[in-house]
Amino acid sequence: MTNGYWLWYPGDFELYHRMRQDFSRVERGFGWPAFWKSEGFRNRVAFRRKYALARETRFCVHSRAVGHVLVGEKKYPFGQVICCPAGEVSISVHAAQIEAFPCVYIEGEAVRSDEGWYVEDYAQPPVPAGCSRYFTSPAQDPARWDYSEKTCLPVKTERVDGGVLYQFETELTAVLWARCGRERLEGMVIYCGESREEALDREHCYYSWRPDPDTGKTPRCAVRFAFIPGGEVELAAVHQYVDIPVRAKFACGDPVLDKIWSVAEHTFRLCSGIFFIDGVKRDRWIWSGDAYQSLFVNRYLMADPDIERRTLLALRGNDPMTRHINTIMDYSLLWVLGVKEHFDDYGDRDFLELVYPKVCSLLEFCGKSLDGRGFLTPREGDWVFIDWADLDKDGPLGAEQMLLCACWEAAARLSQALGRDGSPYRARRERLAEQIERCYWDGELGAYVDSFTSGRRHVSRQTNLLAVRCGVADAAKTELILKNVIDNPAVPPITTPYFNFFQLDVLAACGRLDQVMEALRGYWGGMLDRGAVTFWEEFDPAVTGPEQYDMYGDKFGKSLCHAWAASPIYLLGRYFAGLRRSGEGFVLEPRLEYLPRLDCTLPIGAGDGFVHIRWDGGTLRVETNREGGVLLAGGRRYDLPAGKALVLGEAEL
Amino acid sequence: MTNGYWLWYPGDFELYHRMRQDFSRVERGFGWPAFWKSEGFRNRVAFRRKYALARETRFCVHSRAVGHVLVGEKKYPFGQVICCPAGEVSISVHAAQIEAFPCVYIEGEAVRSDEGWYVEDYAQPPVPAGCSRYFTSPAQDPARWDYSEKTCLPVKTERVDGGVLYQFETELTAVLWARCGRERLEGMVIYCGESREEALDREHCYYSWRPDPDTGKTPRCAVRFAFIPGGEVELAAVHQYVDIPVRAKFACGDPVLDKIWSVAEHTFRLCSGIFFIDGVKRDRWIWSGDAYQSLFVNRYLMADPDIERRTLLALRGNDPMTRHINTIMDYSLLWVLGVKEHFDDYGDRDFLELVYPKVCSLLEFCGKSLDGRGFLTPREGDWVFIDWADLDKDGPLGAEQMLLCACWEAAARLSQALGRDGSPYRARRERLAEQIERCYWDGELGAYVDSFTSGRRHVSRQTNLLAVRCGVADAAKTELILKNVIDNPAVPPITTPYFNFFQLDVLAACGRLDQVMEALRGYWGGMLDRGAVTFWEEFDPAVTGPEQYDMYGDKFGKSLCHAWAASPIYLLGRYFAGLRRSGEGFVLEPRLEYLPRLDCTLPIGAGDGFVHIRWDGGTLRVETNREGGVLLAGGRRYDLPAGKALVLGEAEL
Repeated sequence: MTNGYWLWYPGDFELYHRMRQDFSRVERGFGWPAFWKSEGFRNRVAFRRKYALARETRFCVHSRAVGHVLVGEKKYPFGQVICCPAGEVSISVHAAQIEAFPCVYIEGEAVRSDEGWYVEDYAQPPVPAGCSRYFTSPAQDPARWDYSEKTCLPVKTERVDGGVLYQFETELTAVLWARCGRERLEGMVIYCGESREEALDREHCYYSWRPDPDTGKTPRCAVRFAFIPGGEVELAAVHQYVDIPVRAKFACGDPVLDKIWSVAEHTFRLCSGIFFIDGVKRDRWIWSGDAYQSLFVNRYLMADPDIERRTLLALRGNDPMTRHINTIMDYSLLWVLGVKEHFDDYGDRDFLELVYPKVCSLLEFCGKSLDGRGFLTPREGDWVFIDWADLDKDGPLGAEQMLLCACWEAAARLSQALGRDGSPYRARRERLAEQIERCYWDGELGAYVDSFTSGRRHVSRQTNLLAVRCGVADAAKTELILKNVIDNPAVPPITTPYFNFFQLDVLAACGRLDQVMEALRGYWGGMLDRGAVTFWEEFDPAVTGPEQYDMYGDKFGKSLCHAWAASPIYLLGRYFAGLRRSGEGFVLEPRLEYLPRLDCTLPIGAGDGFVHIRWDGGTLRVETNREGGVLLAGGRRYDLPAGKALVLGEAEL
Repeated sequence: MTNGYWLWYPGDFELYHRMRQDFSRVERGFGWPAFWKSEGFRNRVAFRRKYALARETRFCVHSRAVGHVLVGEKKYPFGQVICCPAGEVSISVHAAQIEAFPCVYIEGEAVRSDEGWYVEDYAQPPVPAGCSRYFTSPAQDPARWDYSEKTCLPVKTERVDGGVLYQFETELTAVLWARCGRERLEGMVIYCGESREEALDREHCYYSWRPDPDTGKTPRCAVRFAFIPGGEVELAAVHQYVDIPVRAKFACGDPVLDKIWSVAEHTFRLCSGIFFIDGVKRDRWIWSGDAYQSLFVNRYLMADPDIERRTLLALRGNDPMTRHINTIMDYSLLWVLGVKEHFDDYGDRDFLELVYPKVCSLLEFCGKSLDGRGFLTPREGDWVFIDWADLDKDGPLGAEQMLLCACWEAAARLSQALGRDGSPYRARRERLAEQIERCYWDGELGAYVDSFTSGRRHVSRQTNLLAVRCGVADAAKTELILKNVIDNPAVPPITTPYFNFFQLDVLAACGRLDQVMEALRGYWGGMLDRGAVTFWEEFDPAVTGPEQYDMYGDKFGKSLCHAWAASPIYLLGRYFAGLRRSGEGFVLEPRLEYLPRLDCTLPIGAGDGFVHIRWDGGTLRVETNREGGVLLAGGRRYDLPAGKALVLGEAEL
């Protein structure tokens, strides 16, 4: 029995595990499930397939669901070996389950749960069944994720405050395991912390556990420091993670940049589990805006399309769409842009077929909230977020329209990729772009305003950065925006790391690499100076001492391991190593002037595609195993043949 | 702690238990979950309430969900006593659960889970929380129904076929309990049957179980006979039921009619559990058409509004509606008519407020499938059922339009009952009625045809019965229909008990009580002659021997305890005892000429309302505890004062 998968209705696996993820936040003893509409999985499905069997064959269906196997006209229970004669036969597997999504594993030689099965939910036409490369054995239960594990011992113990503080080498997502007798376990409490201060603050630390008296183990949580009152015990941390191989390597010889890369890598891997989550201590939720940025980091680090698919499916939920993703209007739009990014990166047509109807229905849902000009407006209860910033939210917000404009364009391109007519979407893009110019562009200020209804002519970086990034602003207007907004100290600065991603991306795309490098060294380098082993949700160099862990009015509210803080990987990979995709191929344009030297491998697409750049300060050597690559260096353009290194000497650079 | 309820999002309890019900069908060892779209419960809800507390108070929230209690700005875990100071306070309880619907029990003096809590699901505005009188203790789990139990011993044992056949007094829905040692339990199989023949047929009987070796118990199933190979054991049946009190009594001195009533009563009680189900052996599913008929029986037997509410909520599912109920177009329409019946019976305005949006969205869903004339047409995959009969289903089916016509009328009346404008619905009814007359009425045939598009002018009883029953046919046309269709032997007879309900109801309403009485004695009396202890899904007097249990090509496929077979209770109560509701009151018009004497109590509305009729062949005595009753007898009309018996002598009758 080989190559079998557990099968389910596509998306159900993701919706189920999404709930487990979104309901997993714990804070000082109480649960804090995510405050948005839950999207349930299906409870009753039927898997169907027709076979033309050359000879008699046997198979067995494994499932925890209630149901039966229908072979022709005859029904069989699950778990029984079924003998199926040669010839044409229709097989359907009927499965129902309440507490988890129904799924089946079909074990056999000819009849088995490989690709080719369709599934229906009695509401929509049948679709190809969903599966995961992580669930290929009949003994597994797809409702329980089998994490990879690594046991870590403390690198330091310290007697303090009437107990022992255990320090692990870095932050982990771990089950703590007190290996001691039952008497010692009686009444034991383990206080955890991302920082030393947090673990020692028994009142305010986020996670404190009474280990299971039988096993000595706690639930899985974010931990770097653990404090246990009383004498020392043998404590281990069983780090649990989803094993997604890192396909990139970055070493440039500048210790700060190299360290930034490696800390960002660790940060990102911790935040990349079953899904892209925001942070490992908090919120442990799947936010569409955060996930959107993670797509860019993933592309340059693991280039794992599976986690992207899981995250995109989990976020979007069922049709018809009735609420914005995470309740946030712009997060719905970023989801559409994320689908486009994913398709551009991996060209996965099957996945696009699966989500394309969801793209359309999302835009249809948005379509119900358009005003006469085609501007997206919130319905009651919708959250117009964009950023934690003082935007003029009177009437339709300009920044939202920029994103919508990019969504119409994305939908047009995705339609075309599936051989469908993209022109209706493109027409909407054109009309919207015209209306944006008419309403939001302020010729006198040389910038887009947030609101055209309030009369306040408020200019923000957010709206203008999105205008550039979403392709609304042309080259001339982009210049004006750089001058009148980005370089204008009178326009309030970006203060959130979330939006700083967009700002740095725009700056870099506009060639302002000095500013980007300055941010890398100052902001991320600044966290390293504080001893960061993972990058933080937010960092203000001016704040020191215990206050640096404070956020949202909560003493240890700040997450010290946050996905959006991993963006240096994207910035370094995209703009300094200089790799970008281009149609079916890629362009490599390394900016060697910013790096002492470079030994860097970056992934290309799914699978094992890579490009390896080696520069010793003199000679540049580029090697790839993918066709379609182009190197731009020394003012010239070189084709990069797969499997054969291209070497340029100093004279050519 | 008194008067507390478990609280949930209204409808979630019903959707969860509906799935448990619809997934409970077992047939010869395999599960057979209902083949329609499952409607999931919500997984994430928030309960909210504001209090103005006169003094400090304490309370505790019990829940199996993940979540917390928010009192003002402060969060508390579940299970902890919370002290709340005097003054105004907002309390919200956040709860999330995957495997069952989230629900909470709030225990306290001032703050507790009584009426007044609202709940939201982050998709719709808050609504009053749902609860059930069956779940009032914090120790309960609303995801598990606590059945009432009664242990029954066999009334007969018989050595046969190398084993022992145990016969219970009547059919039960029971856990079988073999009270013997573990050695005897090893390998024991218990074969169950609704009939002796079924229990003795080890291959074809529906249910056969290996009792749990620890407890000696089997799962709950329909059983009257049980066969166990080997020597005799002590066997008991633990009958599990929902305790819904019977509020009616019927004794007329005619042994056949009295027996029909009591067997119908037992049949109906077995099929009235958490929901109205079709049968106890099979399907154990909740069908809207079957449930619609159960409403009429319930009204005259238990008059329990709760089971109606649970059933109506379970059937309808979530908004927006995407598929017809049970996939059947007419079953959606019967649901709307059921809501009207329920409201007319119990006047429950709170429930109507809850389901009214679902009535509107169902009709909106139907509205998408109307053709230019306003006729309802099926979408792909919709099942146009009406009856197992040879109807001319070319184009829109006439019978469906009759039901739709009644739905528009029902929606108008329900709208008005809530103080809303019913005129748009009434206008649709008028337009549709006109189109029906124009297209389906065949003046030459003096009847409605099934289809006006095929040109075949096919006349069926079904379409014409519904035309009368739905108020489409006026008095003159009703006369024509009786003559040209009902009394016309060339029109194929009704052959299903399902549709026979509609036929007998129409016949009785048209005053043809002789025919109804004939059916009672022939059809139901015929089953009694076969020794029926419950009434069957179907009965053909011409079929005897083992074949009488055969149905759907399955040797024991026929359900011997089927809800729709309990309609004699409705027919006897409504047309012979002669009780009908009339606005806020009721009219009693007993047809004493059909009964030797009468001692009959019938329920009136919810609560303890009743009317008691006693007739000894000479004097008629009527007593009620409800105002608004009217007696029609001897060609005269008498007001029935509550609490004071009205007695009429022979001279007045």
